[in-house]
Amino acid sequence: MLMANDVYPSRQGTAEAIGERQDPVVFGNGPARSEYSLSEEQLHSYEKNGFIVLPGLMKDVVEPMLEEVRRLGREMSHRKEVVTEPDSDEVRSIFAAQNFSPMVDRISRDRRMLDVARQLLDSDVYIHQSRVNVKPPIKGKSFQWHSDFETWHVEDGMPRCRVTTGWIMLTDNTPYNGPLFVIPGSHQWFVAVAGETPENNFEQSLKQQVAGVPSLDTIEWMTRNCGEVQGVYGEPGTVVFHEGNILHASPDNISPNPRTNLMFVYNSVENTPQRPFSGQEPRPEHLANRDFTPLKPVDPK
Amino acid sequence: MLMANDVYPSRQGTAEAIGERQDPVVFGNGPARSEYSLSEEQLHSYEKNGFIVLPGLMKDVVEPMLEEVRRLGREMSHRKEVVTEPDSDEVRSIFAAQNFSPMVDRISRDRRMLDVARQLLDSDVYIHQSRVNVKPPIKGKSFQWHSDFETWHVEDGMPRCRVTTGWIMLTDNTPYNGPLFVIPGSHQWFVAVAGETPENNFEQSLKQQVAGVPSLDTIEWMTRNCGEVQGVYGEPGTVVFHEGNILHASPDNISPNPRTNLMFVYNSVENTPQRPFSGQEPRPEHLANRDFTPLKPVDPK
Repeated sequence: MLMANDVYPSRQGTAEAIGERQDPVVFGNGPARSEYSLSEEQLHSYEKNGFIVLPGLMKDVVEPMLEEVRRLGREMSHRKEVVTEPDSDEVRSIFAAQNFSPMVDRISRDRRMLDVARQLLDSDVYIHQSRVNVKPPIKGKSFQWHSDFETWHVEDGMPRCRVTTGWIMLTDNTPYNGPLFVIPGSHQWFVAVAGETPENNFEQSLKQQVAGVPSLDTIEWMTRNCGEVQGVYGEPGTVVFHEGNILHASPDNISPNPRTNLMFVYNSVENTPQRPFSGQEPRPEHLANRDFTPLKPVDPK
Repeated sequence: MLMANDVYPSRQGTAEAIGERQDPVVFGNGPARSEYSLSEEQLHSYEKNGFIVLPGLMKDVVEPMLEEVRRLGREMSHRKEVVTEPDSDEVRSIFAAQNFSPMVDRISRDRRMLDVARQLLDSDVYIHQSRVNVKPPIKGKSFQWHSDFETWHVEDGMPRCRVTTGWIMLTDNTPYNGPLFVIPGSHQWFVAVAGETPENNFEQSLKQQVAGVPSLDTIEWMTRNCGEVQGVYGEPGTVVFHEGNILHASPDNISPNPRTNLMFVYNSVENTPQRPFSGQEPRPEHLANRDFTPLKPVDPK
């Protein structure tokens, strides 16, 4: 079903096609919000590459947040948002933890995170999705190349690409523990993917994405025309902002160390989702939040 | 079945155990064989770390060898040693190509390779196994941590650890295309793995190794006691020698580029296999060669 106002049609049953991005990357030239805003140079780098790495920016939250992850695994494993290992209380994922963890709520609104998101999108923002992600040692599975925005657009009805993901490394992210790989510059293109969206696709796609995955030809095209694949590494406390449409993937974690990150998808309040462009039902709230109240910044402790 | 002369018992149905290596790493202090032998410093590094990287050493063979791989895929795909993609003549693996490709035979005996192997093992050598290995883009699967020697011992009856693998990068080996990861120093320990060996295990283990894979606890122990996981990267033509018992693994290849390597397992003629220590039938000849004729060196072209 093709919707009239769909500027990023994808999974419409037609052949895969690469089109131009229809939105700015940095909105309104990224007006500074506070002393925690990005510099001109950092803005330029984000605009060009589609991501920026801020080493050690949130180092102070790492230890308390790792303890919070353990606590939530022990005490809150009855909630659908808390996914633990089948045989223990060890956390695999926690969705939308800002709704039941004051610590996560506070971190999501910390000016070091929030003022950057508001600067990049030149508006107030809310959290479209958030997640603690543990890629466990030896067993952690890979994720194929994809644009997050493509999924949020098709499956959640997010109209435009005015969205950025800010995330905090809670453990080392190394070349060995299944780190994020990106194709710098790929956010300037939108890949309209072939195929259609299966019903309740999220049940499958959280484990292994199939719908919305571009072909090898497209990935080759991107590395030839945008930039070589690049790994995103850092020590605990490092913050990364990556643009919602950048192509990214991650290999499996065969190392003996977990890779644990805390991610917030900041969406502009001027870009709130409508009906999913797939024509299907919206995903559950803990995957695609429908409370668009703007986040209020708090100063770092 | 426990054999009386088994100095490296493994997969005997008992619990996993880490024991000391029973053999030297560099035999007879690694007497130089020619101008192509390793230096004292290189020998020392190999002894300590269990591997050595020789950038660009065989650069001249890369282009002709890639062409040879394509030719073998086109012309020799009827042979059991040549494994092509299900839907094309594209090569996945070629085993024992020295038996039907004069070029591969010549490369395997090139003094730049052979004199190093003979030096490390202080004897004549023959090829226990050889393989062209293509890890294809996007689809190439990971391999779990293992010691090659553990398999050669249990499944092929190789009595002692007097064996080294010399391999040539035919494409770039990068952090992104499923490269080799090693635990430096792990070759000084032998992991007696739990479980037993299924019959015809090689049919499974060439795709994904299950028997002979140490536990996460053991991998953690190794990284604490030996060294951190390290990736082995290089440009085409780079040669690596890794000791038969070093623990290694590789993540899947999610990049758009294949990772193609040519590998020769050089075993000492004083270490020829007997009956497999699993008590089972030996593996087929193209996986575990039983022609022990010493290789004759040829000078580089």
